[in-house]
Amino acid sequence: MLEDLKQKVLEANLALPEYNLVTFTWGNVSGVSRESELIVIKPSGVPYEKLTVDDMVVVDFDGKVVEGELNPSSDTPTHIVLYKNFPDIGGVVHTHAPWSTSWAQAGKGIPALGTTHGDYFYGTVPCTRPMTHVEINKAYEKETGNVIVETFKEVDPNQMPGVLVHSHAPFTWGKDPHEAVHNSVVLEEVAKMALHTYQLNPTILPMDQALLDKHFLRKHGSNAYYGQKK
Amino acid sequence: MLEDLKQKVLEANLALPEYNLVTFTWGNVSGVSRESELIVIKPSGVPYEKLTVDDMVVVDFDGKVVEGELNPSSDTPTHIVLYKNFPDIGGVVHTHAPWSTSWAQAGKGIPALGTTHGDYFYGTVPCTRPMTHVEINKAYEKETGNVIVETFKEVDPNQMPGVLVHSHAPFTWGKDPHEAVHNSVVLEEVAKMALHTYQLNPTILPMDQALLDKHFLRKHGSNAYYGQKK
Amino acid sequence: MLEDLKQKVLEANLALPEYNLVTFTWGNVSGVSRESELIVIKPSGVPYEKLTVDDMVVVDFDGKVVEGELNPSSDTPTHIVLYKNFPDIGGVVHTHAPWSTSWAQAGKGIPALGTTHGDYFYGTVPCTRPMTHVEINKAYEKETGNVIVETFKEVDPNQMPGVLVHSHAPFTWGKDPHEAVHNSVVLEEVAKMALHTYQLNPTILPMDQALLDKHFLRKHGSNAYYGQKK
Amino acid sequence: MLEDLKQKVLEANLALPEYNLVTFTWGNVSGVSRESELIVIKPSGVPYEKLTVDDMVVVDFDGKVVEGELNPSSDTPTHIVLYKNFPDIGGVVHTHAPWSTSWAQAGKGIPALGTTHGDYFYGTVPCTRPMTHVEINKAYEKETGNVIVETFKEVDPNQMPGVLVHSHAPFTWGKDPHEAVHNSVVLEEVAKMALHTYQLNPTILPMDQALLDKHFLRKHGSNAYYGQKK
Repeated sequence: MLEDLKQKVLEANLALPEYNLVTFTWGNVSGVSRESELIVIKPSGVPYEKLTVDDMVVVDFDGKVVEGELNPSSDTPTHIVLYKNFPDIGGVVHTHAPWSTSWAQAGKGIPALGTTHGDYFYGTVPCTRPMTHVEINKAYEKETGNVIVETFKEVDPNQMPGVLVHSHAPFTWGKDPHEAVHNSVVLEEVAKMALHTYQLNPTILPMDQALLDKHFLRKHGSNAYYGQKK
Repeated sequence: MLEDLKQKVLEANLALPEYNLVTFTWGNVSGVSRESELIVIKPSGVPYEKLTVDDMVVVDFDGKVVEGELNPSSDTPTHIVLYKNFPDIGGVVHTHAPWSTSWAQAGKGIPALGTTHGDYFYGTVPCTRPMTHVEINKAYEKETGNVIVETFKEVDPNQMPGVLVHSHAPFTWGKDPHEAVHNSVVLEEVAKMALHTYQLNPTILPMDQALLDKHFLRKHGSNAYYGQKK
Repeated sequence: MLEDLKQKVLEANLALPEYNLVTFTWGNVSGVSRESELIVIKPSGVPYEKLTVDDMVVVDFDGKVVEGELNPSSDTPTHIVLYKNFPDIGGVVHTHAPWSTSWAQAGKGIPALGTTHGDYFYGTVPCTRPMTHVEINKAYEKETGNVIVETFKEVDPNQMPGVLVHSHAPFTWGKDPHEAVHNSVVLEEVAKMALHTYQLNPTILPMDQALLDKHFLRKHGSNAYYGQKK
Repeated sequence: MLEDLKQKVLEANLALPEYNLVTFTWGNVSGVSRESELIVIKPSGVPYEKLTVDDMVVVDFDGKVVEGELNPSSDTPTHIVLYKNFPDIGGVVHTHAPWSTSWAQAGKGIPALGTTHGDYFYGTVPCTRPMTHVEINKAYEKETGNVIVETFKEVDPNQMPGVLVHSHAPFTWGKDPHEAVHNSVVLEEVAKMALHTYQLNPTILPMDQALLDKHFLRKHGSNAYYGQKK
């Protein structure tokens, strides 16, 4: 079942090591079929170079394995919460990519400091609050999703396709697994440049809102004019 | 038309990922035919690995597409302003290369701190002023060119083949597309070393002017003695 | 003798340059046969690309060469002390990998700042005290082992599979040579991210103990639920 | 003439890009024949990938080209001064490798902060004083050599095989061109780690002299015991 989606999720997972976003098995990508309310996700702890399309695990929105021999990624409950709460997204990525993870460990969101950021993320990439002991000890991976959703109460996930989980690492998403990986690559690049920008100028303010509007909106929404006509 | 120049512009664009100057499609190179007042430039948003010589777009100095099926780079109006105002240059490069972009995001020019810099850039690589809201909202890409030209009112673009656009990223140029890419590589290296130099010695002054003169002029101008006789 | 272990030790040594943990010959891996109380270790100063299984040196717990034509690594006495004092470990790695070595040179342990760290190291990766002149001048390599063991008086080496030797570099270990290399890779990644985390937030505290418990214990011990059933 | 030495100098030059020590043509290696007082050196401004053994230039101790069609490296007079004043060295390397160059630009020597440094450099890698305007304007490349020699008035070049030229970049040397390149690789690694060490601990002191003695002398001199018997 969902062979097309499995193939896309496999390819998106294999893109993680290609883009140097992962060490060992520290990352996973999923995709969703909105029609059937089923998620395809990487199995837990399997090296990327051994992954095949048949290793992909299919789970429903309650986390029950519907197809597949292997355990799904231990982060599956987090992915599910995101799909349930962000109705327009089609793919989710989690990595421990080093630059974004350093911001998550510092407990700080990444302000928009330049147009590279503004081309993809419409404002500060937020960092969640620390999780409570109850959240950590009970249903940790699900609560990780909930604390992300809480962080987006006033933020549109379609204009901010990523988040830093406090003391942990980033999640990104997109309209499909491929775009979610794309956004992970961008987030890592933006995280690296933001650190170096602050080292050069510790008092720099976020970029001009008008410039941010210009860059985000020339690539996104109905007035976009970047790229080729589809 | 301009098949030779198209080939050169293609090769210069392909050099960007080879030199690790670009992520995804974040960079473009153009070349100019001064005789015909036509510019050859990369199409917008096309991955480098798929680019062919026939994808190159020919535009005139008003930005009108003269040949080519695809949309030209959205930065084309910036390139045009540079060609119109810097009469000796033959190629222009724009990237979001991370070290130079960090300086641009910090809103700071890169002072000449050593001979590597002095071999190519005759003084501080300038950073433009922030653009006004009118400039951003009206003809943004053209005004980006204008703010660069304004920055060079007292600077000779033949002795300073690069600039940082505030909150954005670098542009470089040269006598042809190949040299413009060469200067982008150097700028990135110089930007990286300058950051680390300030981390080692926050109060370091720019290099001695006599040493800068020596290095720049042994490679440039009529008394150059570096390399092989042409 | 010990042909299986020799093969594993060879492969683990060859993994060091693959993971970019070594420059030249700056690293070595050993493995132990607990049954025979014999250690297999890399020969001293031989480039990785020339290493064969027959170059592996077998030494006993007194450091006497039992088999092999070449001198064992000059760090052999350190490895022996670790095997004698940490009875559950099966492999030891020493490198001068740059990020971990920078922490060792700074004389500072690496606090647990996030879940990447917590997945492998159950608390601060400790740094030894500086060695005394007597220790340095007498049996230096053996005393390096002793100062590590002293550092673990109150720390469980099974929950903390690595250490920084003051003014020197890291050692890591694991249940076999392969896992010891794996832990070296993680330590290097964690060391890099911790430096950047402090640059972003110099006053950040170590991660919440509950979160550390959660991450370490979901991968280690009897209640682990990460990965596939063995 | 000197075909063996030419081959060694060629190979040593080709090692520079392999070890990521150079961008474009920013580096050169020479070797000396003490018997004939002749130097073999890379030609000026020729890309490494096009270098052949026949491109190597032979010059005498006055800098006169004795054999070869191409101009020798513009840094040749610096190499000559080093060979004349440091009688035991057989090869010299100059690069603009980024980490060592950052220290040179900062005008600071690299203190010995750990055993990696101590294995190769017996104390602080010194940085020259700034050159005077007379030195810069008259015989710049020769005076670059002289200011290095001045820096070594109280330092033994056999125990300190490298230097940083103020506002410029490093030179290293060794018993032959191969070893000189080896020392350049080490210097770059040591320069990188020293910067990160100071970022972690700005008040760290140089390593214990006893530890430095131990490491330098177990690899160098009559009591060395590292590696295999020759």
